[in-house]
Amino acid sequence: MPAYSTNMRLKFPILALTLEIITIILFGVFVDYDDGKHGGHGAHNTTHHKEKKDPLTLYPMFQDVHVMIFIGFGFLMTFLKRYGFSSVGLNLLLAAFALQWGLIMQGLWHLDDGKIKVSIFKMINADFSTATVLISFGAVLGKTSPVQLLIMTILEITIFSINEHLVAEILEVSANDVGASMIIHAFGAYFGLAVARMLYRPALRNSHENDGSVYHSDLFAMIGTVFLWMFWPSFNSAIAESGTDQLMAVTNTYFSLAACVLSAYAVSSLVEHKGKLDMVHIQNATLAGGVAVGTCADMDIGPFGAMIIGFVAGIVSTLGFKFLTPILASNLGIQDTCGVHNLHGMPGILGGIAGIVAVALGKKKGSAAMQGAALASSLGFALVGGTITGLIMKLPFWGQPPDQNCFDDSIYWEVPGEEEEEGEESLAHGDQKAEA
Amino acid sequence: MPAYSTNMRLKFPILALTLEIITIILFGVFVDYDDGKHGGHGAHNTTHHKEKKDPLTLYPMFQDVHVMIFIGFGFLMTFLKRYGFSSVGLNLLLAAFALQWGLIMQGLWHLDDGKIKVSIFKMINADFSTATVLISFGAVLGKTSPVQLLIMTILEITIFSINEHLVAEILEVSANDVGASMIIHAFGAYFGLAVARMLYRPALRNSHENDGSVYHSDLFAMIGTVFLWMFWPSFNSAIAESGTDQLMAVTNTYFSLAACVLSAYAVSSLVEHKGKLDMVHIQNATLAGGVAVGTCADMDIGPFGAMIIGFVAGIVSTLGFKFLTPILASNLGIQDTCGVHNLHGMPGILGGIAGIVAVALGKKKGSAAMQGAALASSLGFALVGGTITGLIMKLPFWGQPPDQNCFDDSIYWEVPGEEEEEGEESLAHGDQKAEA
Amino acid sequence: MPAYSTNMRLKFPILALTLEIITIILFGVFVDYDDGKHGGHGAHNTTHHKEKKDPLTLYPMFQDVHVMIFIGFGFLMTFLKRYGFSSVGLNLLLAAFALQWGLIMQGLWHLDDGKIKVSIFKMINADFSTATVLISFGAVLGKTSPVQLLIMTILEITIFSINEHLVAEILEVSANDVGASMIIHAFGAYFGLAVARMLYRPALRNSHENDGSVYHSDLFAMIGTVFLWMFWPSFNSAIAESGTDQLMAVTNTYFSLAACVLSAYAVSSLVEHKGKLDMVHIQNATLAGGVAVGTCADMDIGPFGAMIIGFVAGIVSTLGFKFLTPILASNLGIQDTCGVHNLHGMPGILGGIAGIVAVALGKKKGSAAMQGAALASSLGFALVGGTITGLIMKLPFWGQPPDQNCFDDSIYWEVPGEEEEEGEESLAHGDQKAEA
Repeated sequence: MPAYSTNMRLKFPILALTLEIITIILFGVFVDYDDGKHGGHGAHNTTHHKEKKDPLTLYPMFQDVHVMIFIGFGFLMTFLKRYGFSSVGLNLLLAAFALQWGLIMQGLWHLDDGKIKVSIFKMINADFSTATVLISFGAVLGKTSPVQLLIMTILEITIFSINEHLVAEILEVSANDVGASMIIHAFGAYFGLAVARMLYRPALRNSHENDGSVYHSDLFAMIGTVFLWMFWPSFNSAIAESGTDQLMAVTNTYFSLAACVLSAYAVSSLVEHKGKLDMVHIQNATLAGGVAVGTCADMDIGPFGAMIIGFVAGIVSTLGFKFLTPILASNLGIQDTCGVHNLHGMPGILGGIAGIVAVALGKKKGSAAMQGAALASSLGFALVGGTITGLIMKLPFWGQPPDQNCFDDSIYWEVPGEEEEEGEESLAHGDQKAEA
Repeated sequence: MPAYSTNMRLKFPILALTLEIITIILFGVFVDYDDGKHGGHGAHNTTHHKEKKDPLTLYPMFQDVHVMIFIGFGFLMTFLKRYGFSSVGLNLLLAAFALQWGLIMQGLWHLDDGKIKVSIFKMINADFSTATVLISFGAVLGKTSPVQLLIMTILEITIFSINEHLVAEILEVSANDVGASMIIHAFGAYFGLAVARMLYRPALRNSHENDGSVYHSDLFAMIGTVFLWMFWPSFNSAIAESGTDQLMAVTNTYFSLAACVLSAYAVSSLVEHKGKLDMVHIQNATLAGGVAVGTCADMDIGPFGAMIIGFVAGIVSTLGFKFLTPILASNLGIQDTCGVHNLHGMPGILGGIAGIVAVALGKKKGSAAMQGAALASSLGFALVGGTITGLIMKLPFWGQPPDQNCFDDSIYWEVPGEEEEEGEESLAHGDQKAEA
Repeated sequence: MPAYSTNMRLKFPILALTLEIITIILFGVFVDYDDGKHGGHGAHNTTHHKEKKDPLTLYPMFQDVHVMIFIGFGFLMTFLKRYGFSSVGLNLLLAAFALQWGLIMQGLWHLDDGKIKVSIFKMINADFSTATVLISFGAVLGKTSPVQLLIMTILEITIFSINEHLVAEILEVSANDVGASMIIHAFGAYFGLAVARMLYRPALRNSHENDGSVYHSDLFAMIGTVFLWMFWPSFNSAIAESGTDQLMAVTNTYFSLAACVLSAYAVSSLVEHKGKLDMVHIQNATLAGGVAVGTCADMDIGPFGAMIIGFVAGIVSTLGFKFLTPILASNLGIQDTCGVHNLHGMPGILGGIAGIVAVALGKKKGSAAMQGAALASSLGFALVGGTITGLIMKLPFWGQPPDQNCFDDSIYWEVPGEEEEEGEESLAHGDQKAEA
């Protein structure tokens, strides 16, 4: 174990404090409040600008997105029996850093009098940028140290913001991706899978004793699932043009998700032993409709069009969990802890393709070729960026956990001891475990 | 057990997929986005219509209601020690289908150029319609298969929409029921009780080993309780006329619920052994004030009037749990798993009566007779509709669980195995149990 | 044990019912709906008053605050292994009563035609007043009966409203405290600590077997933490002047909290065994940034100024948990169950001092001396009021739990029994315990 040097005592505090101090200095130089003078966010929200608008109009949607990021992603990953502290705790750490870093990285492309002027719109985008990191976190959950994850956060956010800028602004006719099927979901998933490939551990090929759920950990995960499911219409519509476009984005996402639930449940029952439902599918595949309808959300595809997208996404995602995830692990060396390929990867690509088709059919002004370029760019940046990031994370001094301590909070957390006299739920003392 | 044929492998997927495909086709024919041209929802929200209104004004209230439906109802039912997956999982399944079916059933009465034009207002009403099903689900929780429940959903939503249309539009002077004490709560409860009566199982007369809670399942249930409690003001005011009426609905519900908490706690302590509080009362009776103030919510009854209603509802509901539920089970053959009679049934009727009195006292324009007719209609449709639905659900090929597998997730779900070496919380392998 | 007479059967119901009936009568005499004629809340929200404003503009922020009060505070305290029912259940009881009592106590200073006219703004303030009680509850958690706590609620709300009135209105130039670092957080913490000092129990000096967490209780507590963390921007901005001030309050709080997370995690790892993270720190110290930035939230301190405040608060709070809490308990006889001194006390004072500095630097119109007076007044009222309240609570007939039953739900709650045959999580029968 000394070879792994998993002791975080100096590495982690020094890295975290240094990053935060640098960030504060950057904020001092570059960041100011939005004074409302420039409209702040490009073409958006211009329709109702005749009179001075309340700068908090988008605030309720921001809070919905905020809940998805911190409760949704955080609790979704608590399904592992001994990794709940890390799931919800490191989710909070990474997202809190990522939103600061994301605000800077996204804002540097659009300085306004040399400043990034923070509005609710920019805070939503900062929250969005954290989603890429949290998706990738799902792919490497249980197998990485907090230090490795902070490094991933810096690199991923930086690469994300370059791709986002390219897709949204540089391409001649900028591509549509209001709900970010491509630039967040597909990007985050394939970035994470590339990292996971680089961090491949042969010893985890046979299922690890801690890589599973217990009854109540699955219920905690459902808190995450349901909050993500409910607030996804806000995610897909928050930065849409206000008015009809935003209403369409809400409506399409609402119905896509509803249809997705039915197909995910049906296919789960179809492929499982005796027709039983599998919690992994329910926790994840029911959300694929939100991912897949993202790119088209503000397009005039009709509620039934959205439902077809959600319906297909629920099927694809569930089948992916059942049949593709084991193949990725055994044949390609990609150990995808949360199955982000099934929830964000394939549905994200499906969303990108749906966007190409919808634009080609004239459901929204745009160019099908540009939509295709946006999808290709997102996948390319993700795979290359993730591979490089994974190589950096593999360096031996970041405190990566040894195989036998994977999926176990006690290596990085003080874990409450077991009450042997009561037979109550609790874990063995972390130290006993780690030193065994 | 073969007699029960609880294997869902074909039945459930075929039913779920067929329903969803039919629904998508109906959406293709009938459903379109709201284009804002017709105001969409009758007399509502006309006061501020001089300038073009943001179509998302009601969106934050919609999301509150959404949370009540999916987190509130879902987690409230997780109190059972081995039925959490079904509670929150089937709640998601039924509500996701019910909102689609409800949108069609409610919308067909008000076609606009042959289309149902979806607005946030219509999405709120679709969510409302799901509440009736989830209330009835509470009455039969643990004793029904997913297939039976999907059938109940189709029938209940259909009957609900007929009663709602009758109460809200046909009656000469339409009745007031802004918070739906009558058309949702009383309807859903008595519909569910009628179904439960039809599905009576003598073998469950003596308390079933799984029909109870464990410590952490009671805490999961409190997540549901508290979210319902907090957002109930949104439920009761979401479709109120905007402005003063809506503010009154919020205010009345806020104070009714607060008063209800005090009386529910007091009576729970009064009737329990040594003055202890009972979690069943706290999880449920604290919400009765929201139900009971529903019909009167937008009436000028004064905050103290609302508090009196809530205060009484808390007492009635707690006493119902303590004294009435056992009698219903033993004498009338109505096994009401969640006690919906105490949370939605009696408080719903109380709300209907309060509405009659308030209208008679001139607290709102209307006819006391019409209010009475609305209450009678809701109860009548519920009892007749629930009885017929229960008879259909009793047919032997829907995969109803055998008595010994009631209240047990493992008959329809893959349940994670017990970790015997750790003494940790988890359940016995579902299959061992089911095959024992 | 008879000496303690912990049986609540008569005491608690009589007190709760009496208080509620008195409250309803006071509401009948004094409380009415806001008719929008007087603007309702002083200088606030006057900027956009040209046309009649929707009375529900603040409603989404109100609901965020509501979630913080009932889910946030309630679940934050569920970290104790056997005290979850009391944490979330008594939190609901106390807050439901406190919001009614707070509305009266705050409103009596501002009668309008002899009436308190309830608006969303007043409901937010009523919710705020409950926060003081819930903070103090944290200091005495596990060592007090429901009757004692109701008495504390009445007294604390009353004293709070006097101090608030003094700070906000009487002082010549009224002090700034938009996010209530002083009048809620510091006040609630030192009030609670004074009560805890009065209720000192020497027998609890050595750690009590139930004064700790188990794995899943720590996860329940994280639900509280994360909801508090996410919605804190609403807490600090809900009553700010709408427009730029409110946007600043949101922005400052958002970034202060983000910076606080990094410093809290870093210091937790630095001071713990082998660099591990401690859940107590993560659950609490990550929130200190929200407390500390409260007074300055609507001041032009710049996002980086807010981040410095949050960064320092995270360090101070974590160090407080590690080093100060044990000293308070062993040397001063202050047994602070939840460590409110570290989360609300010191960060509240830090916020007050930051406000003095910011006003002195001209970041907001005001007087540094008045800011100092407000801080001194809040601390003075808290310490004197808390001491007197503690003395009253110490009277022997309020049913205080005996030492051996502290931190144990089973003395006031029916607790579900253990399933011995399954080795599943659940508690020993409450009665066995209490009678042992």
